[in-house]
Amino acid sequence: MTSTRRLAGAWLWALLVSWAGMTSPVTAAGAGRDADERAIRQVLDRQTEAWNRGDLEGYMQGYWKSPDLTFYSGGTITGGWEATLTRYRKRYQSEGKEMGRLDFPGETIELLGPDAAVARGRWRLALSGGKEMSGLYTVILKRLPEGWRIVHDHSSADED
Amino acid sequence: MTSTRRLAGAWLWALLVSWAGMTSPVTAAGAGRDADERAIRQVLDRQTEAWNRGDLEGYMQGYWKSPDLTFYSGGTITGGWEATLTRYRKRYQSEGKEMGRLDFPGETIELLGPDAAVARGRWRLALSGGKEMSGLYTVILKRLPEGWRIVHDHSSADED
Repeated sequence: MTSTRRLAGAWLWALLVSWAGMTSPVTAAGAGRDADERAIRQVLDRQTEAWNRGDLEGYMQGYWKSPDLTFYSGGTITGGWEATLTRYRKRYQSEGKEMGRLDFPGETIELLGPDAAVARGRWRLALSGGKEMSGLYTVILKRLPEGWRIVHDHSSADED
Repeated sequence: MTSTRRLAGAWLWALLVSWAGMTSPVTAAGAGRDADERAIRQVLDRQTEAWNRGDLEGYMQGYWKSPDLTFYSGGTITGGWEATLTRYRKRYQSEGKEMGRLDFPGETIELLGPDAAVARGRWRLALSGGKEMSGLYTVILKRLPEGWRIVHDHSSADED
């Protein structure tokens, strides 16, 4: 009888452990969401900081370093991390251009599943001589082995 | 020994059932993804069909009927289903305007989790007199009790 009980006890334990494995993601979901939102905000904040010190490569660290990154701006599709960096360089670091000071007032971050999120809102770029550019953005982020990264960016400008 | 075996067998069965419960969503995931993508494509196709018969209310059925729907166009944020319909009416059904013929060449649909997806690509509107407008869109869809619906739309035009 003792060995029967021990055997049954072992199975019961295995079953409880497997149940715990199924239910714990649910009970921990709230805390996990908060941590994910903080992690995403940190990636986006670091991008802004990099931009505002003129560090375009640093800014680009927030993007998925892949040929499959997609960047929509107005009516133009740019495909891949390298091409996106090249586009930014032409627009903001070539002769007569400036990076200005970037901010994202009222940014909204929303988790869309365990490994994906959307951030959206208004971008604003303060340029020299009191000029300002602004518009809207929607970015899709994914949880990758290297951390949360933007996999798709859609930006548009006020002049639209 | 027979009752021990039977007991162990019962636990083993319970464990297998619980494992099956954990693993079946994975094995069924491929089929589920395909079904979800088809359901999403159907919602989007119905929108296009409604647009192309001049049925703006029918087109709007693809959107989440909520004050929390967000619609980004160029630099303008429209909030809520009603306001989005009003905006479409002004732009495409007021005097001197036309709805034209809409299509979405090369649309991409990607699931972002069990209940969310992104669709993106180029929109194209053929107008009378051979005129054409076009641009890009990124829409976030969610699985709601009423089906898959667009909860966020970001559209921009080529002139951007």
